[in-house]
Amino acid sequence: MVNPERFLADLHKLRSFGASGVGKGVVRPAYSDADLAARDWLGAQMRDAGLDVQTDGMGNLFGLAEGRSLLLGSHSDSQPEGGWLDGALGVIAALEVARSSRESGGPPVSVVSFQDEEGRFGVTTGSAVWAGHLKQTDADALTDHTGVSLAHARAGLGRRVTGPVDTGRFTGFIEMHIEQGPTLDSSGDRIGVVTDIVGIRDMRVTFEGEQNHAGTTPMHLRRDAFQALAAFSTGLSDRFRNIVTPQTVWTIGHVSLHPNASSIVPGRVVFSMQWRDAQSDRLARMETVIRALADEIAEARGLTVSFGPMLGLDPVAMDAALRACLEDAAEKEAPGAWRMMPSGALHDATNVAALMPVAMVFVPSIGGISHAFEEDTAEPDLVCGLRVLARAAGLG
Amino acid sequence: MVNPERFLADLHKLRSFGASGVGKGVVRPAYSDADLAARDWLGAQMRDAGLDVQTDGMGNLFGLAEGRSLLLGSHSDSQPEGGWLDGALGVIAALEVARSSRESGGPPVSVVSFQDEEGRFGVTTGSAVWAGHLKQTDADALTDHTGVSLAHARAGLGRRVTGPVDTGRFTGFIEMHIEQGPTLDSSGDRIGVVTDIVGIRDMRVTFEGEQNHAGTTPMHLRRDAFQALAAFSTGLSDRFRNIVTPQTVWTIGHVSLHPNASSIVPGRVVFSMQWRDAQSDRLARMETVIRALADEIAEARGLTVSFGPMLGLDPVAMDAALRACLEDAAEKEAPGAWRMMPSGALHDATNVAALMPVAMVFVPSIGGISHAFEEDTAEPDLVCGLRVLARAAGLG
Repeated sequence: MVNPERFLADLHKLRSFGASGVGKGVVRPAYSDADLAARDWLGAQMRDAGLDVQTDGMGNLFGLAEGRSLLLGSHSDSQPEGGWLDGALGVIAALEVARSSRESGGPPVSVVSFQDEEGRFGVTTGSAVWAGHLKQTDADALTDHTGVSLAHARAGLGRRVTGPVDTGRFTGFIEMHIEQGPTLDSSGDRIGVVTDIVGIRDMRVTFEGEQNHAGTTPMHLRRDAFQALAAFSTGLSDRFRNIVTPQTVWTIGHVSLHPNASSIVPGRVVFSMQWRDAQSDRLARMETVIRALADEIAEARGLTVSFGPMLGLDPVAMDAALRACLEDAAEKEAPGAWRMMPSGALHDATNVAALMPVAMVFVPSIGGISHAFEEDTAEPDLVCGLRVLARAAGLG
Repeated sequence: MVNPERFLADLHKLRSFGASGVGKGVVRPAYSDADLAARDWLGAQMRDAGLDVQTDGMGNLFGLAEGRSLLLGSHSDSQPEGGWLDGALGVIAALEVARSSRESGGPPVSVVSFQDEEGRFGVTTGSAVWAGHLKQTDADALTDHTGVSLAHARAGLGRRVTGPVDTGRFTGFIEMHIEQGPTLDSSGDRIGVVTDIVGIRDMRVTFEGEQNHAGTTPMHLRRDAFQALAAFSTGLSDRFRNIVTPQTVWTIGHVSLHPNASSIVPGRVVFSMQWRDAQSDRLARMETVIRALADEIAEARGLTVSFGPMLGLDPVAMDAALRACLEDAAEKEAPGAWRMMPSGALHDATNVAALMPVAMVFVPSIGGISHAFEEDTAEPDLVCGLRVLARAAGLG
């Protein structure tokens, strides 16, 4: 049987690495000192639980059971300003299930904490490289928003790296996660069994105009990179109107103006353009609109536009058999208080699905809030999720 | 007589402090190591020229002639990415005129290099404090875009500070400067005698919405701070249409998104809103529109908006007598190849005008480019400007 107190204590302990901000906030981006310290602590817990601790070249941390086993886990890196549960919950729940299963002579369960799920360098880069979706050499060339390369960042792993971890030793993967949206919290359900994960597209776009003096350059002679971005952003909502569904989302979350001074007409802007939908063809149609509108705006205003590499993942359906295990477990642990639902957020499970059967289980996010210090879930719901995961893994 | 070779050699020497980027670029923001080193060198040149070197509490650097004297100068701090002439030209020309005048037994001429003209902390803060337009205690509370206070930055002046410099000892002020716009370069004139300096308004605006996950938050539930800014920026051009003239300008040059990550709906944006015009009442009408539109957008989208302190300066007319000296000198040095013109850029002369008669003289900017590494002026035009300044100061 799983131990809820031990599970909650470990979850709070993991939060202490990078604890920050208000409430239960965490600042633990991939490869930061706090992230590496958290992974060192996680490795020690896995070792204490009798698992074989391995770290691959990307920094993905595994606690391996003997022989073929089910893999449970998520990620322990955070957003630049994140909550204490995003990723951490799935890792600590996996640790508790694997540990309990060994203590009670249950089935073999392995644990993973993937690296850089939150996309400091790209999109779920740790599991993407492990699953073969992204080549290590291509990943190494990715840079974060301050220009640091992934190659440089992962060099900081040092002697932690033990070598590649064979993907063939696992029979399947289940990831437990907070929902990060308002669905369960609004409906009052305690568990969500995921049907599929939406696809995501992410690229950096650059408008290059002309930097000049903000007092002496007449408006009609300006080639202002920020004005181009503002026109692009407002225009995009109009252009998308006949393409998107109520579930489609798009976001400009990162903006870097150059030189970013109040008395200078900005000559360049680099920004992130991200969009998500459950249909691959819709994602592609949105890309066409994005590129066409950016080209139009650049041409009309005398700027140039360039597009970075297209990152992202296609929509993925969950494995029917593993899903059924989760549905049975949910009905036992939360009878009548669970639902099937798509995941609007991307997860490592998307990458892993290329290798083995994959499923996911959600617990509610209070107020639907995530990727923010205020992220939280009621502790009884965390424990309910743990029990569903344990049951689906063959315990209890 | 002025010495053009010595003048140009000093101008190139000053560029060596903070020389950066392509062409003749300079990175020498107020109070930076490069700025302080440049001022130490300037002080030594003033001393060699027989002037009494004084630095006030803001870091404004003076080279004083005995008794009452005409004051010449400008500033030697630069934009985050600036050219070699913006400010530097007026300081080195002043040095050469004062030095030549002493050598030849001419009239007493003092020199000044004001601090923070480029507004790392506000708008022409060095001359604003010296002229009593801005209180030292209010100035000290200003912060740059990284959160450093002016009080902290000017503490780095250390023992350079000698004390206040009496504003009453000067009979007038003439500032020589590059035009920083396309007028002279297009018309083929070599000299511009300034009629008046446009007014400027500058404030920081903050939209505060809700930070959340970019995958799980439906578009209609978002309170996205960047989308509010984009709507504000595009809406402003429409609202201004019936208010502005072809000479009016407005700029959003600084944008700081929070937390600035591609997978997070941005919860907050702080941006600079700056506008300039020759009419005070038009500046005020624009302010009304800016505040009203920002309020409307915030209310419609469920955000809050807040406005920082309003910085800026009113439009200022140049002194008729000093202007006449410059016009006479221009006609002698560049017969038929000079013009009268307003200044679209703000200058220290605006602040000094509250204390004494002021005038300004411009030389052409190649391609109208300034506040950029590419800023430049043909050397014969620099020397022509020097000779006009010397003549207006009573030499030659």
